[in-house]
Amino acid sequence: MRKPVIGVMGPGETADESICQRAYFLGEAIAERGWILLTGGRNVGVMEAASRGAKETGGFVLGILPDRDRRHASPSLDLAVFTDLGNARNNINILSCDAIIACGMGLGTASEIALALKNHTPTVLLGTGTTAERFFQGLSPQVTIAETLEEAIDAVEVVLEHR
Amino acid sequence: MRKPVIGVMGPGETADESICQRAYFLGEAIAERGWILLTGGRNVGVMEAASRGAKETGGFVLGILPDRDRRHASPSLDLAVFTDLGNARNNINILSCDAIIACGMGLGTASEIALALKNHTPTVLLGTGTTAERFFQGLSPQVTIAETLEEAIDAVEVVLEHR
Amino acid sequence: MRKPVIGVMGPGETADESICQRAYFLGEAIAERGWILLTGGRNVGVMEAASRGAKETGGFVLGILPDRDRRHASPSLDLAVFTDLGNARNNINILSCDAIIACGMGLGTASEIALALKNHTPTVLLGTGTTAERFFQGLSPQVTIAETLEEAIDAVEVVLEHR
Amino acid sequence: MRKPVIGVMGPGETADESICQRAYFLGEAIAERGWILLTGGRNVGVMEAASRGAKETGGFVLGILPDRDRRHASPSLDLAVFTDLGNARNNINILSCDAIIACGMGLGTASEIALALKNHTPTVLLGTGTTAERFFQGLSPQVTIAETLEEAIDAVEVVLEHR
Repeated sequence: MRKPVIGVMGPGETADESICQRAYFLGEAIAERGWILLTGGRNVGVMEAASRGAKETGGFVLGILPDRDRRHASPSLDLAVFTDLGNARNNINILSCDAIIACGMGLGTASEIALALKNHTPTVLLGTGTTAERFFQGLSPQVTIAETLEEAIDAVEVVLEHR
Repeated sequence: MRKPVIGVMGPGETADESICQRAYFLGEAIAERGWILLTGGRNVGVMEAASRGAKETGGFVLGILPDRDRRHASPSLDLAVFTDLGNARNNINILSCDAIIACGMGLGTASEIALALKNHTPTVLLGTGTTAERFFQGLSPQVTIAETLEEAIDAVEVVLEHR
Repeated sequence: MRKPVIGVMGPGETADESICQRAYFLGEAIAERGWILLTGGRNVGVMEAASRGAKETGGFVLGILPDRDRRHASPSLDLAVFTDLGNARNNINILSCDAIIACGMGLGTASEIALALKNHTPTVLLGTGTTAERFFQGLSPQVTIAETLEEAIDAVEVVLEHR
Repeated sequence: MRKPVIGVMGPGETADESICQRAYFLGEAIAERGWILLTGGRNVGVMEAASRGAKETGGFVLGILPDRDRRHASPSLDLAVFTDLGNARNNINILSCDAIIACGMGLGTASEIALALKNHTPTVLLGTGTTAERFFQGLSPQVTIAETLEEAIDAVEVVLEHR
């Protein structure tokens, strides 16, 4: 049986330091549980931080990039998929995860949460703010709100027990 | 010079009657101005209603479908693009419009608004509710809120004057 | 009922003058019959020549581009779909046509012929050379070889009578 | 530095037993060298056989599927990317490989070879027949013909030394 694949989605260039730190710890926690980390693969923001956290903990990191240019890939990826699809690749990311954790908020992240919920991919919001929480909870009963990293990981564990 | 292409995005199977009626009138108003209507192309909900409104007013309707199956196309389309991309086709729709009007709200619509704002496609929210308005206004200064169909069409006209 | 959509596929930057002239006449013949011309939409090679031929004859031209950059679109398009999918857009082109005519040969064109035959889209090879003819005839019984533009258009007419 | 990713492309349902046996040995040879195997991910034909060969030799197998339905994935995959793109996913496969080996021939395989050569992905043809060899050699000087599995693997090794 394949290992679980958990996505960490969040802003790229616009991510601030505290968001990136949280993403790093998410990557770490995912790697410690033996899960594969999936990110958008680029070498910036939440993607880069989560990838580095998982990689430095001995985990396996898959990046699915919007680009075809290999220089945009995070150096922490074990495996890079180059789609050349631009933002259309967001849908691939959520289809390929057993669950996703949104860490921070931005327009790309919002599109991924919406697509994940549409596809019934279990979705955890961690630190995305009350407006985002209210918006997505109004659109789907399947969204989980986490206050802490531990709550987010626990929610994923519950999902994986039932898959 | 090509005619302006205006997208009307909104829920499919889950759209209620009042939303569909509004979509019909949007299609009508777009056709009356000589603009091309772009929709997601399927024969349900806002897509179907807007397409019918434009078609019955003598307009031209382009549908960009998630399917490859031609039976899912609205009978009111003048031209159908079959992508077989599932929800990844949402990004094509917003890249191909000069402006979009969101009419009602759902998960697919939310992903399209987010992708449109990310791409700097001018975006008008019409009747999407205050939670959605607050959420997207917090993510981008470029979103326009319209209370009525007339306000939505006026906002598009301002955009087109400046293209 | 929607008008028939006929694709003309062929090389871009590498197309020579005689191929482009043939593409121009194909666009003309398609427009004269009231069919919609579908091309890859860029402003070079067979795409540009066929689009110009149809446009100058009063036809309607849909271009489906690999780009998101509007400056790459042929000025002869009536409608442009910007996919930002790179060469993944080739599959959309063949799914959206009632028949395609390959005019000249190149790597992109070869991929489109292969995808069209896989999808059972009727496919006509016009001046693609005997090696290409032999290769594709060996892979599918559904390919039609045309020696002249008239034969290519006749083959499309037969297809449309049976759709 | 990421491990090399080598693609094995070939027919699905239409692959005969001798082609599948060759694909199995290719998967084995790729795994023995510590390279990651990339396939189209489905549980049929060359994809299935190559994946099984690599998996049973202790290798790592990435499958990039046209589907969203997880039941179509080969049981030998370590990691599955579900694209829901249909045949548009072929372009992702070739963009994500350091080199590809075509094993047998079919319409999907032909589209992948054409897209690979267009993208300058090093491409080895193994047992694809003289018509295919002549066709693709006429379109690109970058195609390599291999008579045996050993020649194919040697050609990949030369590519990897120069990357």
